Amino acid sequence: MRIGVLGAGQLGRMLALAGYPLAKTFVFYDMSGSPSAGLGEVIIDRDGQYLDDFISRVDRVTYEFEHLPVDVAERIAKEKPVHPCPRALQVCQNREMEKTLFGELGIPTPEWKIADSAESLQAAAEALGCPVVAKSNTEGYDGKGQAVLRSPEEAAAAWQSIGHSRLIVEKFVDFRREVSIIAVRAEDGELAFYPMAENAHHEGILRYSIAPAPKLEKHVQEDAERYIKALLNELDYVGVLTLELFETAEGLVANEMAPRVHNSGHWTIEGAMTSQFENHIRAVSGHPLGNTAPRGVSCMINIIAEHGDIERILELPYAHVHLYNKGERPGRKLGHVTVLADSYEELVWRVKNCAQFLPGCPEFDSTLTARG
Amino acid sequence: MRIGVLGAGQLGRMLALAGYPLAKTFVFYDMSGSPSAGLGEVIIDRDGQYLDDFISRVDRVTYEFEHLPVDVAERIAKEKPVHPCPRALQVCQNREMEKTLFGELGIPTPEWKIADSAESLQAAAEALGCPVVAKSNTEGYDGKGQAVLRSPEEAAAAWQSIGHSRLIVEKFVDFRREVSIIAVRAEDGELAFYPMAENAHHEGILRYSIAPAPKLEKHVQEDAERYIKALLNELDYVGVLTLELFETAEGLVANEMAPRVHNSGHWTIEGAMTSQFENHIRAVSGHPLGNTAPRGVSCMINIIAEHGDIERILELPYAHVHLYNKGERPGRKLGHVTVLADSYEELVWRVKNCAQFLPGCPEFDSTLTARG
Repeated sequence: MRIGVLGAGQLGRMLALAGYPLAKTFVFYDMSGSPSAGLGEVIIDRDGQYLDDFISRVDRVTYEFEHLPVDVAERIAKEKPVHPCPRALQVCQNREMEKTLFGELGIPTPEWKIADSAESLQAAAEALGCPVVAKSNTEGYDGKGQAVLRSPEEAAAAWQSIGHSRLIVEKFVDFRREVSIIAVRAEDGELAFYPMAENAHHEGILRYSIAPAPKLEKHVQEDAERYIKALLNELDYVGVLTLELFETAEGLVANEMAPRVHNSGHWTIEGAMTSQFENHIRAVSGHPLGNTAPRGVSCMINIIAEHGDIERILELPYAHVHLYNKGERPGRKLGHVTVLADSYEELVWRVKNCAQFLPGCPEFDSTLTARG
Repeated sequence: MRIGVLGAGQLGRMLALAGYPLAKTFVFYDMSGSPSAGLGEVIIDRDGQYLDDFISRVDRVTYEFEHLPVDVAERIAKEKPVHPCPRALQVCQNREMEKTLFGELGIPTPEWKIADSAESLQAAAEALGCPVVAKSNTEGYDGKGQAVLRSPEEAAAAWQSIGHSRLIVEKFVDFRREVSIIAVRAEDGELAFYPMAENAHHEGILRYSIAPAPKLEKHVQEDAERYIKALLNELDYVGVLTLELFETAEGLVANEMAPRVHNSGHWTIEGAMTSQFENHIRAVSGHPLGNTAPRGVSCMINIIAEHGDIERILELPYAHVHLYNKGERPGRKLGHVTVLADSYEELVWRVKNCAQFLPGCPEFDSTLTARG
C-alpha cells in the first residue's frame, strides 16, 4: 500500500519510519520548498499542478499538518480515502467552530466570545474579565496572531496588532499544568488512548513532555478519554487525534485539538508498545490498532534551534536520539531526545543530565520538580 | 552523513530505518536485481560499472551480506572507510581461515580437517570418527555445498555431490542448543555485548530466537563475550559482529561468524535499549555505542514463504510486525514478528498464540518448552 502524505516535515518522516515495517511506501506532497522527510518520493508543488499526479500514485492520503487548504483535502477525498476526514481540518482551522464543537460535545473550554471590531473586543474583555487572550479566528498558529489584554482599554491596540477581522477572545485559565491526550480511531470505530502527557512550553514552543503524566488522578485520564472519544466519534475520525488541555482545580479545560500525530506523543516511539506514528499508519491503512500501553516512564525533550552536544547525549544509556536532518535556525525543531526510566525519581535525574547538553534548553520544571 | 550499503535486502532496510533518526542517509549498491530495501537510492550494478559513482556519493561504506567479492571491498576501502574491514569478509568466506583464526584466539570449534580429494575426505572421516559434516571450504552458505557422512565409506559419494576441490570436514557436535552472541565495536575500540539468544532452526532456516537465552548460566555469557571480544580486537573490527555457537555439556563451541547484523538479533529492535541496527550505524559512523541491555524478554519469529494472517497478528497487543515488502516464495524470509513479555512463562504462551497465524511455522520447541 502506498500512502500519500500532505506535508514533508519531521512528522511525515516519522510516519514513514513507522510505516515501512508494515510494508507501506510513501509519497510526500508539499506546497513549500523545504521538505525534511527524506524517505520516500517528494513532490514539491507550489501551484497545485501536480496534485492529480500525486493522487493517482497513492492508495490513501493523510497529512502531517492542519494548515493545508480544506478544498485540497476535499478534492483528494473525491478520488482516494483521506484520513483524517477534511471536516477535522476545517474544524481545526476555525477556533470558533472548534470551541463550538467542544461545547456541543460537553468538553469544557475557557469562557470565550467573538469580536469583530475593536469595540466588540473591548466589550468582550469587559464581559469576560481580564486578563483575556484575543486570537485571530483563523490562520493563527504557534502563538502568532494573538494578544493578551490585561485590561479592556488595551482593546484598540490589540485589535490593530492582530490585524484580523474576526477574533476569538478567551478568558485566562488558571491552570496547574498543560497536558495532552492522544487517541487513535480505526476505520471500524475501534478506539485506543495513550496515557496523558504533561507538557512544558517555553517561548511558545513545547520543550518537555512527560508520560504518563505524573501524579495524574485516574478520573482525569478518564475525563480526557471521554472528551476525545466524543470528538473522534462525532467526526467519524480515522487516525491519531491530539487534544491539548489545561489541568485546573476544577478539572480539565480544552485548549485545542490537532488532527494528527503530535509533538507531545513522540515519547511513544520508545515509551509505548506501539508508537503514535505506527498507530496512525495502522488506522489510515485499515489495520487493527496497536497496544498503547506505556513501557516505563518517559520524557521527551525537544532539540530547538541548535543541536548541542549530540555525541554526549548518544553516550547516555537511557537516551534515544531522533534528528530530523534540518539546519539550525532560531526556534526551529531539529529533533528530540526521549529519556526512559523505571521511576519518576530516576527520570528527573536523567532528564536534567541530558538537558545540560542542549544549549538554550530551559530548566526542567514539572510536577516532578515542584516543591511541596 | 551518507552511508553506502553493499546489498539492498531486509538487513539494509532495517539499517536505514535505524539510521535516519541519527540524520544518516543511505545509498544501496546491489549486484543483483532484486532490492527490497526500499528506502534510499539503489544502484543496481551487475558489471561494476557504477562502483566509482557509488563510492563518490557516500561518506562511509558498510555491507549487509558477507558473500560480496573481497576485492570490491578492498577497492572501496582505498577511497572511503569500509566497516567492517575487508579482512573480516575474507575470513568469513573461507571456513579454513575462519576455524584457524578461532583456534589461534582460543575459541573452541568442532574438531576439523581439510580434504582435497575423495581419499582424504575418507581419511578425515575415519580420523575424526563419524558422523562428520563435509562443507565446501568457500562459497557455501545456507546449508548448500554440504554433506553429512554417517560412515567413511560415504566419502566418494559426498565428494561428488559437493563438487568442490577443497572441503572442511567437521566432527558432529552433540549440542544442547544453538545460541548466538552479537557484539559491536566502535572506532575507538569501545565494546558492547548483547545478551545471547537461543536459536531454533527448521529446514536450515532460523525460525525462532529467544533473548536473553533462557536458563543461561552467567559464565556461558562471559565465555561468549570473551570469544567475540578476541575476534573484534584481532580484526580491529568496527560494527556489529555475530558469532553462532553450540552450547554443549563441555561449554560453548563456535560454529561460524557473520560480519554483520544478524537475524538472531532482530529482537533487539523492541527488546533492547538500542537495536543491533542502530548500534551498527553508530559504530560505522564513528559515534559512541548505545546501551545493549534487554527490555523484558523477547522472541523473534521469522515469517517464511507465506505471510499468513498478519491482520490477526496485528491484533496481538504484545507482537511487533516487521515486513520486508517481498513477494512470497518457498524458503524466503518475508518478515519477522517480535513477541515481548515480562517473563518466560508469559513469553511461551504468547509465542504459541502468535505462531498459529503463520502457516508452516514449526512448533515452538525450546529450552522453555522442553520437559524435565
